[in-house]
Amino acid sequence: MKLFDFELAPNPRRVRMYLAEKGLQIPSVQINLRQGEQFHVAFKDENPSMIVPALALDDGTLITETMAICRYLEALHPTPPLFGSTPKEQAIVEMWSRRAELEGFMAVAEALRNSVERFKDRALPGPRNYAQIPALVERGKARAAGFLEDLEAGLAGKTWLAGEFFSVADITAYVVVEFAGWVEVQPADHQQNIERWRAAMAARPSASA
Amino acid sequence: MKLFDFELAPNPRRVRMYLAEKGLQIPSVQINLRQGEQFHVAFKDENPSMIVPALALDDGTLITETMAICRYLEALHPTPPLFGSTPKEQAIVEMWSRRAELEGFMAVAEALRNSVERFKDRALPGPRNYAQIPALVERGKARAAGFLEDLEAGLAGKTWLAGEFFSVADITAYVVVEFAGWVEVQPADHQQNIERWRAAMAARPSASA
Repeated sequence: MKLFDFELAPNPRRVRMYLAEKGLQIPSVQINLRQGEQFHVAFKDENPSMIVPALALDDGTLITETMAICRYLEALHPTPPLFGSTPKEQAIVEMWSRRAELEGFMAVAEALRNSVERFKDRALPGPRNYAQIPALVERGKARAAGFLEDLEAGLAGKTWLAGEFFSVADITAYVVVEFAGWVEVQPADHQQNIERWRAAMAARPSASA
Repeated sequence: MKLFDFELAPNPRRVRMYLAEKGLQIPSVQINLRQGEQFHVAFKDENPSMIVPALALDDGTLITETMAICRYLEALHPTPPLFGSTPKEQAIVEMWSRRAELEGFMAVAEALRNSVERFKDRALPGPRNYAQIPALVERGKARAAGFLEDLEAGLAGKTWLAGEFFSVADITAYVVVEFAGWVEVQPADHQQNIERWRAAMAARPSASA
């Protein structure tokens, strides 16, 4: 098994935090996305989607998508459960993981990739080039701020995002809040639930993964 | 349990197809999105996210997000498995489900919601209004066509998208291909794998759900 990783990118960080929470170690290869190593022929041959993270299995299967990688590892190593235990817990973890990703992560990525020179013609990751759309910068920031409002409400009266148990939903939402700082979207002073939860997240050893 | 549904919308259709494949029936309420029933006070009180599908549990918990609803039902009714059986199968189902959704479904939705008068100021679903961005129409169509290329390659040598077993990845990808027709993106004549697989999907009783 081999993990394609890049230490400065937020999606690979989700996998690293997941591994740290599970106490797992996997051999990894750094693909320096800032130096364009995802476009190098040797990597493209192994990973035509040209995205990181990706997990190469020993039989040659390549698993892309952060949550697909984590679910694979969860099936192999179910303890401690990070996707919930009961059917209802599992549903709530999935719901919040998706909200954090679709409404939070993608909004921040939209603001970032459509504004920064480094992503000119690379407004979306993957094998195809897309031009930047300037109108997405402000919309992305507005959506990210909207996600923080929903996150604040979602954390009310709960220790963790899905309830009284830690899960991948916390990992994704935490990475989103950190990532939002890249486009200067920050939790507001009155968002006390986020502040409390963020401090609890930062205190976990996995936060430095 | 009560499912908020709308028969003309593609995401609720994914849930209905899932239910049909599992042989499950759940009481449902139609929320007519074209008549703006998602904005009605009675629905907003039950579902502040104002999106469909949503599953209300008997204890008052509301599960939004198509895949969270399906995973909840899968945990309660594991047979036949529609999320894969082995760890590797589960990972491949998750990977392809996500690709179909993030690269396919969202691209089509982007093209549709940014072009049609009905979605003026509603370029994204949910409780907040966002103006249409005309540049997303052509980008959405281009991305959708790119997804069809990847789908064609992904189906090569396989009966179903994740392998020799039917899964939710097939449901999502099938709904994407149908939905793409709404923005006049169709599989090309040479995309024979899609044609073969699409015919096999259409022959399943769930296709009419």
